[in-house]
Amino acid sequence: MSSNDGLRNKGKTRADMEDRRKAVESFTGAKLEHAGQCSFDPIVAEKNVENMIGTIQVPLGFIGPLKVRGDHADGEFLVPLATTEGALVASVNRGASVISASGGAEVIIIKDEMTRAPVFRTRGVRDSRRVVEWVNENFEEIKAVAEGTTRHGKLIKVRAFASGRSLFLRFSYDTGDAMGMNMCTIATEAACRLIEERAGVKLISVSGNMCVDKKPAALNFIDGRGKTVLADVRIPADLVKDKLHTTPEAMVETCYRKNLIGGSMSLSYGSNAHAANMLASFYIATGQDAAQVVEGSMASTTCEICEEGVYVSVRLPCIEVGTVGGGTKLPCQSEALSMMDCLGAKKAKKLAEIAAALVLAGELSTLAAQSAGELGKAHKALGR
Amino acid sequence: MSSNDGLRNKGKTRADMEDRRKAVESFTGAKLEHAGQCSFDPIVAEKNVENMIGTIQVPLGFIGPLKVRGDHADGEFLVPLATTEGALVASVNRGASVISASGGAEVIIIKDEMTRAPVFRTRGVRDSRRVVEWVNENFEEIKAVAEGTTRHGKLIKVRAFASGRSLFLRFSYDTGDAMGMNMCTIATEAACRLIEERAGVKLISVSGNMCVDKKPAALNFIDGRGKTVLADVRIPADLVKDKLHTTPEAMVETCYRKNLIGGSMSLSYGSNAHAANMLASFYIATGQDAAQVVEGSMASTTCEICEEGVYVSVRLPCIEVGTVGGGTKLPCQSEALSMMDCLGAKKAKKLAEIAAALVLAGELSTLAAQSAGELGKAHKALGR
Amino acid sequence: MSSNDGLRNKGKTRADMEDRRKAVESFTGAKLEHAGQCSFDPIVAEKNVENMIGTIQVPLGFIGPLKVRGDHADGEFLVPLATTEGALVASVNRGASVISASGGAEVIIIKDEMTRAPVFRTRGVRDSRRVVEWVNENFEEIKAVAEGTTRHGKLIKVRAFASGRSLFLRFSYDTGDAMGMNMCTIATEAACRLIEERAGVKLISVSGNMCVDKKPAALNFIDGRGKTVLADVRIPADLVKDKLHTTPEAMVETCYRKNLIGGSMSLSYGSNAHAANMLASFYIATGQDAAQVVEGSMASTTCEICEEGVYVSVRLPCIEVGTVGGGTKLPCQSEALSMMDCLGAKKAKKLAEIAAALVLAGELSTLAAQSAGELGKAHKALGR
Amino acid sequence: MSSNDGLRNKGKTRADMEDRRKAVESFTGAKLEHAGQCSFDPIVAEKNVENMIGTIQVPLGFIGPLKVRGDHADGEFLVPLATTEGALVASVNRGASVISASGGAEVIIIKDEMTRAPVFRTRGVRDSRRVVEWVNENFEEIKAVAEGTTRHGKLIKVRAFASGRSLFLRFSYDTGDAMGMNMCTIATEAACRLIEERAGVKLISVSGNMCVDKKPAALNFIDGRGKTVLADVRIPADLVKDKLHTTPEAMVETCYRKNLIGGSMSLSYGSNAHAANMLASFYIATGQDAAQVVEGSMASTTCEICEEGVYVSVRLPCIEVGTVGGGTKLPCQSEALSMMDCLGAKKAKKLAEIAAALVLAGELSTLAAQSAGELGKAHKALGR
Repeated sequence: MSSNDGLRNKGKTRADMEDRRKAVESFTGAKLEHAGQCSFDPIVAEKNVENMIGTIQVPLGFIGPLKVRGDHADGEFLVPLATTEGALVASVNRGASVISASGGAEVIIIKDEMTRAPVFRTRGVRDSRRVVEWVNENFEEIKAVAEGTTRHGKLIKVRAFASGRSLFLRFSYDTGDAMGMNMCTIATEAACRLIEERAGVKLISVSGNMCVDKKPAALNFIDGRGKTVLADVRIPADLVKDKLHTTPEAMVETCYRKNLIGGSMSLSYGSNAHAANMLASFYIATGQDAAQVVEGSMASTTCEICEEGVYVSVRLPCIEVGTVGGGTKLPCQSEALSMMDCLGAKKAKKLAEIAAALVLAGELSTLAAQSAGELGKAHKALGR
Repeated sequence: MSSNDGLRNKGKTRADMEDRRKAVESFTGAKLEHAGQCSFDPIVAEKNVENMIGTIQVPLGFIGPLKVRGDHADGEFLVPLATTEGALVASVNRGASVISASGGAEVIIIKDEMTRAPVFRTRGVRDSRRVVEWVNENFEEIKAVAEGTTRHGKLIKVRAFASGRSLFLRFSYDTGDAMGMNMCTIATEAACRLIEERAGVKLISVSGNMCVDKKPAALNFIDGRGKTVLADVRIPADLVKDKLHTTPEAMVETCYRKNLIGGSMSLSYGSNAHAANMLASFYIATGQDAAQVVEGSMASTTCEICEEGVYVSVRLPCIEVGTVGGGTKLPCQSEALSMMDCLGAKKAKKLAEIAAALVLAGELSTLAAQSAGELGKAHKALGR
Repeated sequence: MSSNDGLRNKGKTRADMEDRRKAVESFTGAKLEHAGQCSFDPIVAEKNVENMIGTIQVPLGFIGPLKVRGDHADGEFLVPLATTEGALVASVNRGASVISASGGAEVIIIKDEMTRAPVFRTRGVRDSRRVVEWVNENFEEIKAVAEGTTRHGKLIKVRAFASGRSLFLRFSYDTGDAMGMNMCTIATEAACRLIEERAGVKLISVSGNMCVDKKPAALNFIDGRGKTVLADVRIPADLVKDKLHTTPEAMVETCYRKNLIGGSMSLSYGSNAHAANMLASFYIATGQDAAQVVEGSMASTTCEICEEGVYVSVRLPCIEVGTVGGGTKLPCQSEALSMMDCLGAKKAKKLAEIAAALVLAGELSTLAAQSAGELGKAHKALGR
Repeated sequence: MSSNDGLRNKGKTRADMEDRRKAVESFTGAKLEHAGQCSFDPIVAEKNVENMIGTIQVPLGFIGPLKVRGDHADGEFLVPLATTEGALVASVNRGASVISASGGAEVIIIKDEMTRAPVFRTRGVRDSRRVVEWVNENFEEIKAVAEGTTRHGKLIKVRAFASGRSLFLRFSYDTGDAMGMNMCTIATEAACRLIEERAGVKLISVSGNMCVDKKPAALNFIDGRGKTVLADVRIPADLVKDKLHTTPEAMVETCYRKNLIGGSMSLSYGSNAHAANMLASFYIATGQDAAQVVEGSMASTTCEICEEGVYVSVRLPCIEVGTVGGGTKLPCQSEALSMMDCLGAKKAKKLAEIAAALVLAGELSTLAAQSAGELGKAHKALGR
């Protein structure tokens, strides 16, 4: 059947895309008038998708100016957010305004490592120890082999975990300005082949789920993955009253009962209001891997009374972002990155710092709204 | 300054959007040529975003035909995926092909409840018990008040959790074909006002993080949120060999050491290969809330030897999707939903079942690839 | 060899015990002068241990009078604690004194169910659903069969969890005044035989680790196991100063940074200072199963400023205790139970309430000590 | 009142103990005939308990000979277990017999560090970083101060965790042959005073719950606390049949559905059958801190088909034991240690290895029993 021929079309040109789109329309009966559009040559996306039939246009808003006082991001930024959730941009924008009026968000990156953890099958616990010893003794050779596959990746360390006949080796890399997951996979595969041959052990999977990619995991929360970023701000009491329509005390109690007690009672990884919202919209806008919002969501938000008024902080253990590779070169996404001067080399840490300040803005605004009893009202007015 | 005037522009027309976009370009120095585009009247997105300056075009591919044997989705589907991760569509497509050749994926929904859990401050543990008793005794009145705010939502139950002076009431709703988060928030706020007044207790926040929205939480994993969906397939051994280039035994060992042992060692919520990938790309394509991939990611994938060859299953405790509301009415997104005849009323369960079959396809393909040692190779060829 | 003959001795009399003890001494070269002692006829312990060679004498102290205002325990109690950790009794005793001077601890039990969860192998997800439906439809028959094995146990409900071909049925029982684990196992095994035969499904294990016995598990933390008990007290500010040598503010900050932030950062189940200490020493003293301290340890302690001074609470989701069965009839243990008039029928709830007040006493004393910087000092003076 | 006088008696002699016991009898009306006994001079226990009124005699059995092939424990051991749970000793003994007949359990210790983690209040995230940098730069001085408080403890490292204004410093020590908790507390307090003064930061609590003592915590599971011990054994198929009355296949399926799937579904820390049982009875017998069974319980047990028959392993991340200090010098407890030649210096690693082999014995026996459907039967025959 001709439609099926179109479905099997493997080409990358605009004409190929059109053929496929028509075949899909024919097969499904759907009209893909908007989804079939693409403002750029589809060949540009050839490394980002297969079976391309068009694009999904996600509404793009922005927040800011958001004042950030990081080691890499220092200044006022307009931050792009792609979302379909009404009220999100408005709420985060309010938070950004408060942060800027308070002098900006302090942001620091305390760790930066991307990981991949293959799993091997050994003979047992003594054999696992033998392999770990081999790996430790031959680290430099392993490093050379792994780094031989990449221009930018640097192997920092290998950490071993063993249980029975399963041996996990968690490789940590500096991946430069790329998020770096694929780089790590390829480098680790090369290292695994060396280890298999030289240490005499069987690789079962290059990813043994101690990486831990796109799953919520205690290991990531504790050790971090990608960039571990901390941010905070001290908001004067009058700003809390005038702009957030609540009090420091009410914000602190909301954060305490909701994030801390509620998070502890539901056994959440992290304790925040809605960090995932900010990260998802930021990641979609800037060509990051949206599925890595999973790890990103494990944020810890605190809120305390301080001399000035209220102190608010976020700890983000897993900000996995890049300014090269992935979806960052796609036309819309690269433009969104450019809004923050975050496109290309030497920008990944800056992007991560802005992400943390962004999450801080969204957290404090929602905590304020909930402490003032305004959440449903906002959604009624702006969303729905 | 004129640029700042543009930034403060609150309008919703295309002209307003253009003004804002230009102001952003002026402020940041970035050119928003592609991101500034929008194939539809921006007024259409007025409930989905604020400060709109354009759209992000996310590359759209599809997989299928995918044969699904659900209670609501029964047939062969082309499934839209919006992603920037190369190799993802190709890999899932391979899995879909194997599922279809194996007779299709069995899918069932075993629970369907959306939740919102306010937190109250009581006098202490006895006072909390008093309030809980009041809630139980007056459930019908609470239900009437909550349901008075919505045409579609039905309050199913209220479950109480107490610790010290914090009392959490987890409201569970049937939200029809909407994902329903906002509906639940508004209904719960109304119920809270009744409870505050009649039971004499102080509401601290309409969301007390036992909901649990967009955070990875044990409570959601165990009790489910949105739709809890199970899917499985039995793949004949020859298909495993011919199409997946591995063996049932190798797939089973990969799943065992990676998902189960690895997931247990990293203390992951769920035990899967990359469920978040399929959900993120599916959610973006179909106008779902991308941040809810966080809960969705807590999938459990199993792989066992069976008479036919290999048995593969997924348990998805939190598929939070709708076919009305949210981003589902946006032009591209509604077209993507139409590809599966999943737009509008009476379609949400169907959509959830397709999502589960989709995750199953992606899981089995990646487990097969990893058991055959092909992961890095695929990413080298298709992604990067 | 004669020593090995003695090791194989299966008898229960004092003479048998002596023979075994001598054989152990001969085999090991150790002298069991104290451990070989036993103030009672060993036949009394025949249901509690095999290969008996004597007893371990654990030092027994007490705390109190501890004023408890529970629904079942109402009055002042001396509470026995068997421990080898110096400073523990003294510290808890201080807490008890403060509680009593504050008018006593309020205690309530909000749930009381003991569980056992077998796991079955089904054909797949649809087959699992079929079995669950059969169980629901035939609940009364299952209940009759389960209860036919026990005089005291009552089957309350069966909750199903399914993933792939694994089907878990969590049976919840009222076990009267026994902790009831064995009662539940035997009753559930009978129910399983019925289900296997009538529903046509294969039992794999009568315990499928969703019970969850003696493992730290989110399921238990959230749903409770045994008795879920809440306790609290309001301590006047002058008592905090005079008896605890600290301030309400310091206690609250210690609880906040240690239990809540620290517990959240280490991903602990529960958020307490040392609940396990009180439970372990209480369980050993009263003939409970010491391994169930594992579940018991998942306590949540809160500390807040209140009008009177400081409010302290504990939530104990899994107090698994009995006043009949297990070790409760052993001579020392039954005497310890008698100290609180907690031996025999109709006393288990009372015992659980005293346990919660005891934990509260220990928690507040340690929080106070740590907030006053006294922990190491206490251990230096009283322990080691 | 005279009874109250007795209650307040602070002495340590046998006469003081008698006075107190009589006062307790008088206050409570209980007779403490057995509990009042003590085969040794109470002064011996003066560092282990306060308000001593006697002892609790816990029935003592043993298992073995258990063949252990560790780096520190190498030979056949009779292992003392103090318990009130019928069938436990018999079941573990069966496992020990199978291990010994299989050539013994391989055991290795892969980490040995005791931890204490104070929490400080800083000005914010940049201030936390400043303090961490100070700590890193002055590690040698901190080490000297900490080690100045102890003869045996050696500070290995300090690991920092920060969130908002809370800074946690996790101190790791080599504590020689002591379990070492008190040693660590005292040394860490000294270090904290130095840090407070020199780095200008406020200590809130010497224990900030990232230690993590006696709470189930992901941090301990992943990083270990005390000794991390691995053990395994390969059991010939005929032994499985003859002694365990089941098959390798049935054991593997039980372990898979119960420990792995069940543990994953209940979100347990660890995946084992009943490790806490073995540790609790072993700890009580040998004078360990029974509350540390909490961390000990987080064992991971695996069971796989191997050439010989079945492979069984345990991973025990937190075996916190000592052969000096704590309750190890008490008469019965020191005798129990002597049974394994584990009393005093240079024996703690040996004791930990025996503990791991013991857990392995108990695990394989219970997995076998459950796979053969014998659990309830055993408890009916031997326990209640």
